[in-house]
Amino acid sequence: MAIDPVTRTKRDVVIANRILAQQGVLDAYGHVAMRHPLDPQKFFLSRSLSPALVEESDIIEYNLDGTPADGDKRPPYLERFIHGGIYEKRPEVMATLHSHAEDVLPFTISKNVRLRPVIHAVGDMGGEVPVWDIADKFGDETTLLVTNMDHSRDLANCIGCGRLALMRGHGFAAAGRSINDLVRLSVYIPRNARVMLNAMRLGEFIALSKGEIEARLKLDTETPAMKRGWEFWAREAGVGHLLGDD
Amino acid sequence: MAIDPVTRTKRDVVIANRILAQQGVLDAYGHVAMRHPLDPQKFFLSRSLSPALVEESDIIEYNLDGTPADGDKRPPYLERFIHGGIYEKRPEVMATLHSHAEDVLPFTISKNVRLRPVIHAVGDMGGEVPVWDIADKFGDETTLLVTNMDHSRDLANCIGCGRLALMRGHGFAAAGRSINDLVRLSVYIPRNARVMLNAMRLGEFIALSKGEIEARLKLDTETPAMKRGWEFWAREAGVGHLLGDD
Amino acid sequence: MAIDPVTRTKRDVVIANRILAQQGVLDAYGHVAMRHPLDPQKFFLSRSLSPALVEESDIIEYNLDGTPADGDKRPPYLERFIHGGIYEKRPEVMATLHSHAEDVLPFTISKNVRLRPVIHAVGDMGGEVPVWDIADKFGDETTLLVTNMDHSRDLANCIGCGRLALMRGHGFAAAGRSINDLVRLSVYIPRNARVMLNAMRLGEFIALSKGEIEARLKLDTETPAMKRGWEFWAREAGVGHLLGDD
Amino acid sequence: MAIDPVTRTKRDVVIANRILAQQGVLDAYGHVAMRHPLDPQKFFLSRSLSPALVEESDIIEYNLDGTPADGDKRPPYLERFIHGGIYEKRPEVMATLHSHAEDVLPFTISKNVRLRPVIHAVGDMGGEVPVWDIADKFGDETTLLVTNMDHSRDLANCIGCGRLALMRGHGFAAAGRSINDLVRLSVYIPRNARVMLNAMRLGEFIALSKGEIEARLKLDTETPAMKRGWEFWAREAGVGHLLGDD
Repeated sequence: MAIDPVTRTKRDVVIANRILAQQGVLDAYGHVAMRHPLDPQKFFLSRSLSPALVEESDIIEYNLDGTPADGDKRPPYLERFIHGGIYEKRPEVMATLHSHAEDVLPFTISKNVRLRPVIHAVGDMGGEVPVWDIADKFGDETTLLVTNMDHSRDLANCIGCGRLALMRGHGFAAAGRSINDLVRLSVYIPRNARVMLNAMRLGEFIALSKGEIEARLKLDTETPAMKRGWEFWAREAGVGHLLGDD
Repeated sequence: MAIDPVTRTKRDVVIANRILAQQGVLDAYGHVAMRHPLDPQKFFLSRSLSPALVEESDIIEYNLDGTPADGDKRPPYLERFIHGGIYEKRPEVMATLHSHAEDVLPFTISKNVRLRPVIHAVGDMGGEVPVWDIADKFGDETTLLVTNMDHSRDLANCIGCGRLALMRGHGFAAAGRSINDLVRLSVYIPRNARVMLNAMRLGEFIALSKGEIEARLKLDTETPAMKRGWEFWAREAGVGHLLGDD
Repeated sequence: MAIDPVTRTKRDVVIANRILAQQGVLDAYGHVAMRHPLDPQKFFLSRSLSPALVEESDIIEYNLDGTPADGDKRPPYLERFIHGGIYEKRPEVMATLHSHAEDVLPFTISKNVRLRPVIHAVGDMGGEVPVWDIADKFGDETTLLVTNMDHSRDLANCIGCGRLALMRGHGFAAAGRSINDLVRLSVYIPRNARVMLNAMRLGEFIALSKGEIEARLKLDTETPAMKRGWEFWAREAGVGHLLGDD
Repeated sequence: MAIDPVTRTKRDVVIANRILAQQGVLDAYGHVAMRHPLDPQKFFLSRSLSPALVEESDIIEYNLDGTPADGDKRPPYLERFIHGGIYEKRPEVMATLHSHAEDVLPFTISKNVRLRPVIHAVGDMGGEVPVWDIADKFGDETTLLVTNMDHSRDLANCIGCGRLALMRGHGFAAAGRSINDLVRLSVYIPRNARVMLNAMRLGEFIALSKGEIEARLKLDTETPAMKRGWEFWAREAGVGHLLGDD
């Protein structure tokens, strides 16, 4: 018998945490969430815990404003607001990520260069990636953390209708049409950053064209080919047994 | 009793997949194939699967045009055409690879610099490596994927009589006189790319001379020394038991 | 029943050694110490041993001048003086580290650039990090090692009231308000160095502002969020069982 | 009862192979040798085998000219001559290495920059490291391999009375006063190369002074501190049980 949609979603949150930890997109910090499959005003996110350790029982149901939907008292992530801000603004977004992936960080603090897609796998990242600097609206005496809905809504505005925004001196926030779509993109974002950085050492480089970006964005995100990463990485991360629907 | 040539070939495809995954030349994506040892109009390639997971039963027999020779219905790699295009044009080629190896990617998008052999182990890579840009012939609204024989034949023409071509924003395709020859070269191509990139940070550098490239190309590819990598890497990848002929 | 403060401290020294080895901040060399919780004139440090191998029975009690407090005859670290020099000068410091972390080393020998905090996690590193060159006071015929209290006091003066000093051609020495504070900062110092180095390849970059540094320095170092790393990394390093107080 | 000097030497060759493979100084290729402890006209080296796989029974006794001393018929390393050339010229050298360590390779092909010691651990590497280009004496149509005593003696002359020479487009050859001395230095040579390369991205840098190099060269190579790496790395490489003399 197939499992119910809520259990499926919680397990997918676990799988995504483990994959992103194993692939180095998350480390001791950072988090990944999914919108509630039946109630778009809620989302699922782990309690405050390193992603590599997250299990199904650690998942908490949150309202979009970051309050626990069922009164769960366990310590939450300080920056859980990031997720609700995006879900609130973007009804089609089903999965969200906050990462400190190291190789993206240089692009978050550069005054001269914006991250662009240079490899086919991140064509659906969009064109130039915007950078959200918390100091622009909230001053230069913050801890750089997104600790309330004001911060979060401002960040979500920066993402706009795109896939992600870099966060100055901090990391990035990304949105997916599905959890697979989010994870696949996020695994390749740091790689794209490394490739672009290294290509710049060789001189001028060719980024993906507007037409190529559009063609990549039109691809079905849930084909066997597009899910090959999700399935392989889940096994690599030791959670292959959570993939099945029984 | 020695195993038959077809079984030997299928096992070598498995070994090559596992080695190249373990050595980081392949990741969740990419694939490696071998020409049929008895019928040059066919080749062996895994079904759509991450290389680290490939087993003997996953290998499918294909016609050079990318159709399954025996009606196998399992989902194929979208880019299986890459292999047939090379086998069609180059009768002496016995093994082929499509890789997204990250450290090669900067050279696929550079407007200024071509990859050249700078370390002895890739002397048989040839001189300057050509870059195939799918947009040149097929326009700038593709997904960058090689999804038919037109794409593949154009790529094979770019390789010409050489060992490989880089694919813009995507990866590379390589050809080997034997599976060992292909794997050995492919393991060192990313290393050569890193060394050349780092040498450029120091200023001018010395590439292999024409005479050195020719001397390396004349080396017997199947001596104990040349197979030392294949045998060691197979063990590292957990498939040492597939090496023996019994 | 809770364990006594001395046992707790020794176990924390073990945990810190193992975490910093597993995270690559220490390798075969380097060491981490804690001030005695009941006697501020003493500190705990392993006998001469690679950090990944340190166990509770390897911990020796030292006087601030680097002599063993209980006559322990096992070979000590040659550079144990580093720790005493800092404890002597800085009563509030409870934990100290000497590391050769590779990615910090370029900043120890640069004539042009000083390490600065560019990522939020190291905001409490302070602003520009000072570099201590042993040759300035002790001449250019030393082995670069800190082998007596004269060296150590000079190094401690360079740290001043800050968190760390780089050591030219050698590594760095760091101080923490608690062991967790020290370890968390130290794990991210090499990352910050890599990010700054890579950002410089993109052109000009934005470091943390004075106000942001102050805000980060005011954070409570012992919240669940700030201890998430310590707990996760301890598990990763195989010493999660030493975390509990029983 | 202590083991005899020949068995001790063979085991040390095994330990060195395993350490250098585990530390990434050797990969599928490269080799490390020791002079015979009782007969300075002979040396011990593995048969043709990847260093990570070498066991005591794989060690062959060679004459300095690269012929097997006891008629051993197993395939030898093609470049075994490297070792004899150094032992012949340098009576005090007891251990030798040939490595392709990737991070040293950029310095082997640079027209502008010579590798210099910038971190204390390689102070005993000497000042500027010479580069041996096989083409200088043997023309530019070789395979770059050292396959006879003429090549080897020319390489040994380039090392001179120093610790190592880089080999253009190929790797390096190094000499040690003891196996521990050789291994310790060789583990840190690639690190020194990375640090120097990265420091150059920051602008001008400070190398070790002549006096510091001399002070490091005078250090006793066999103290507990200097052997800490050897003992730790042997355990990491799974050959800690070969360390003891019984």
